Amino acid sequence: MITGKNYIGNQLSANGNKTFKTFNPLLNIENQWEITEASTNEVDEAAALATQAFKTYSKLSGAKKATFLRAIADEIEALGDELLQVYSSESGLPNGRAIGERGRTLGQLRAFANHIEEGNWVDASIDTAQPERKPMPKVDLRKMNVALGPVVVFGASNFPFAFSTAGGDTAAALAAGCPVIIKSHPMHAATGEMVSGAVIRAAEKTGMPNGVFSNLNSSGIEVGQQLVEHPNVKAVGFTGSIRGGRALYDLAAKREEPIPVFAEMGSINPVVILPQALRNRADAIAKTYSGSITLGTGQFCTNPGLILGVKSEGLSKFVQTLAEEIVKVEPSCMLHPNIAGAYEFNKANAISQNGLEVLANYEAEVKPNHARQVVTTVEGDTFLNNPTLHHEVFGPFSLVVQCKDEAQLEEIIFNLEGQLTGTIISDDNEIESSSNIVSALQNRVGRIIFNGVPTGVEVCPSMLHGGPYPASTDSRFTAVGVDSIKRFVRPFSFQDWPNQLLPDELKNENPLGILRNVNGKLSNETI
Amino acid sequence: MITGKNYIGNQLSANGNKTFKTFNPLLNIENQWEITEASTNEVDEAAALATQAFKTYSKLSGAKKATFLRAIADEIEALGDELLQVYSSESGLPNGRAIGERGRTLGQLRAFANHIEEGNWVDASIDTAQPERKPMPKVDLRKMNVALGPVVVFGASNFPFAFSTAGGDTAAALAAGCPVIIKSHPMHAATGEMVSGAVIRAAEKTGMPNGVFSNLNSSGIEVGQQLVEHPNVKAVGFTGSIRGGRALYDLAAKREEPIPVFAEMGSINPVVILPQALRNRADAIAKTYSGSITLGTGQFCTNPGLILGVKSEGLSKFVQTLAEEIVKVEPSCMLHPNIAGAYEFNKANAISQNGLEVLANYEAEVKPNHARQVVTTVEGDTFLNNPTLHHEVFGPFSLVVQCKDEAQLEEIIFNLEGQLTGTIISDDNEIESSSNIVSALQNRVGRIIFNGVPTGVEVCPSMLHGGPYPASTDSRFTAVGVDSIKRFVRPFSFQDWPNQLLPDELKNENPLGILRNVNGKLSNETI
Repeated sequence: MITGKNYIGNQLSANGNKTFKTFNPLLNIENQWEITEASTNEVDEAAALATQAFKTYSKLSGAKKATFLRAIADEIEALGDELLQVYSSESGLPNGRAIGERGRTLGQLRAFANHIEEGNWVDASIDTAQPERKPMPKVDLRKMNVALGPVVVFGASNFPFAFSTAGGDTAAALAAGCPVIIKSHPMHAATGEMVSGAVIRAAEKTGMPNGVFSNLNSSGIEVGQQLVEHPNVKAVGFTGSIRGGRALYDLAAKREEPIPVFAEMGSINPVVILPQALRNRADAIAKTYSGSITLGTGQFCTNPGLILGVKSEGLSKFVQTLAEEIVKVEPSCMLHPNIAGAYEFNKANAISQNGLEVLANYEAEVKPNHARQVVTTVEGDTFLNNPTLHHEVFGPFSLVVQCKDEAQLEEIIFNLEGQLTGTIISDDNEIESSSNIVSALQNRVGRIIFNGVPTGVEVCPSMLHGGPYPASTDSRFTAVGVDSIKRFVRPFSFQDWPNQLLPDELKNENPLGILRNVNGKLSNETI
Repeated sequence: MITGKNYIGNQLSANGNKTFKTFNPLLNIENQWEITEASTNEVDEAAALATQAFKTYSKLSGAKKATFLRAIADEIEALGDELLQVYSSESGLPNGRAIGERGRTLGQLRAFANHIEEGNWVDASIDTAQPERKPMPKVDLRKMNVALGPVVVFGASNFPFAFSTAGGDTAAALAAGCPVIIKSHPMHAATGEMVSGAVIRAAEKTGMPNGVFSNLNSSGIEVGQQLVEHPNVKAVGFTGSIRGGRALYDLAAKREEPIPVFAEMGSINPVVILPQALRNRADAIAKTYSGSITLGTGQFCTNPGLILGVKSEGLSKFVQTLAEEIVKVEPSCMLHPNIAGAYEFNKANAISQNGLEVLANYEAEVKPNHARQVVTTVEGDTFLNNPTLHHEVFGPFSLVVQCKDEAQLEEIIFNLEGQLTGTIISDDNEIESSSNIVSALQNRVGRIIFNGVPTGVEVCPSMLHGGPYPASTDSRFTAVGVDSIKRFVRPFSFQDWPNQLLPDELKNENPLGILRNVNGKLSNETI
């Protein structure tokens, strides 16, 4: 069933001569499937097919594209338990997580189907002509969002379903009317092939043009580079490391025609615990956070890697309880030996920094590729002066910074890099007297949380998953929720265009019944 | 009244030791005012003030910011005729144009005031909590657009009012809640100082924080470079040449924290005349286009520099009439000797290309800095094979490409660079049988026009002024109309945030009465 080949449009293809295997981190052995890397010609072919498919696919109605998205969800579901097994064998993630992430992925596809079927997302705007206006007649102008062009999506290591092959970026791009070329993540290439097969079957069943979707394997960086530099490609979606995302951004910015790269990258997700909360419930907060830090082996992009508080008895109690609690958590398996290795390396590097104190370190023997969680602490001054401590340690690692006073806390927040999230833990009204801290934090993040944990990214329209650089390369767009479709469209204006040749969204008759801004008023009426 | 100094926030300042003068192209003499370039320290100071001002300005209500924008418009109006005279003396543009462009500028400022006072533009979205949801409770999430940070605006040479000091970019950024630092255009620095004075007076009268606006003079590239590289700056607006815009884009992309550059650059605005239209009304079209090509001395970014048709009697007649008509237009003055010189240089370079035939060349003596209009023609094959002919000649220059057949016409369109506009001239229903040509053109432009001229950019919500690169650096945003505010904001999410601490736009009570997406339904109700 798993061939190890690429999908160049609807065709399985393996013309390259480089192969690789994926790895089962739980069993600590290679998986059986031999995956063939895409060749230069195959990349070109996928890009040519995507450009060809764009001509028709970008013009399809929302209803037609919705049928396609729903069929993808159905085909993925139809893969049943086998898909879940392959997923776990390539990620070490447990069956429950596989089921949950598959549900999230199907939910995203169906949410986008509903979104484009409803149709309001095109932001239709109509200003009718005023031929009698003085001194100049006013022309008729009508504007709506149209698809940008073929999109390349890079699969993420930590979400083989929800941020990979048929994940959020793909669903958003296909919903917008953009063909998608996947640069499959090498750690879960077989999972990717199975999901790609589902997408291709859905495309064939619903009559989509060949080239609307391709899936390319690679274990190195060449295929990704070739895709980002390809003139046929008009946008890139990426979830992963700062180094990887920035490299793609730089490649795209150097093109003759620069294209947008939406890279959702690293984050340490600062959590600020205010003094009264520390005084009143240090233990409870510590227990909650020992769970959040170790959730999914700390492999979520919203993992709380930095906890900030002002020195006090409460803070001392918090770090003590956190240290006690976190070692009670059973260490779990990371996605891949490389990721487990990087965790050990980055953890050791952090721990070796002057002034860093290790509060808790799970010391017992662990199975291969399992991560020992660590909580560390440092003085505010030391943190401010050592940029290394501001960098993410991907895994179940957290650093508690003990600030000497509120002014230093504010200074530290002001000096943080951009973050996906920021959290304030506060008792009752004490947040109201901390408006400087809240303002400073808001300026560094994409989402701010009150009395909660940053892990858990709800898929809903009001979610903003992104943030100031380097949390993402473009803070003006979310990577989660239906608004992520906005990354892959551009507004387009028709001037004095014949009514019968306008897209349905802009016709006088409003055949789709969508909400439009007509001469400055929202309306779903005809004109 | 004109001091030649910079505005560093509310203070006139001239600490630099480099000075320059502007030029009156009509009189062909230097203007009297001595302008002092901003020093490195002054740039830093303006940036520091802008970051400080951002803290409070970005939090002001739409109503408060609207008062400021309206006051700017009033203060500019209060400058009366003196401002118009300075404008003309620094641009060579006639008084009528000055009055019209001032009206456009005031209209833009007031349109943005209305837009932010109404308040729906923040795209408020609310998903309320579901504490009972299984398997996981749903958190409360609320999202809205917030200001990005200090914005640098580069004044444009060809619109000293509408795309400069208090032009569209500035109005959009201030409306969004972003302080603005102007890199004043060296060709109209005195006009810029007068308008800046109006902005500063408006800021003081309406109680805006010092640093919400600064105006920096420079005749070279150093001040602009320093601004774009400054860590306090979060976005850039620019209108001008491809070379200039791309240089700024490259600088911004190389920053440690890359920032968006919205550069609206060159365009040759292709016009396709379909066969039947050529057969039936070649003369009338030629007359219309001789006006459009020479309008404003060809110095509009939507100037029609490329006219495409299939060889026919009709096309021959069109070029003949266009040649006859265009020399009847009285040559007019360009903005500056440098621009007139560049026009002569680029025109000569185009004319020297193999296979280019000059159809009409105004040959009589002209006054200094006045532009002789030219119409040229070339075969489709020659055009396809010579990229030089695809480049803009800024000024009253147009090239008619005679294609051998419809297939070649489509190929030429397919191979064009990105454009601000594309125009189809068609008789009755002939456009319906040209859907390939229309599709190809749509894919290369930001706005498509039926039976009109591309010159004339209506300021209204349905206008898209921008287009695929190199028409602009980001085709996903317009530079004209209230939607241009979207360039300078980012969406931001609040999770489980206390109602009384939310911005008014997201409070349960909906005190502003704005339209919000509440649990997937648009509503202006309370929650």
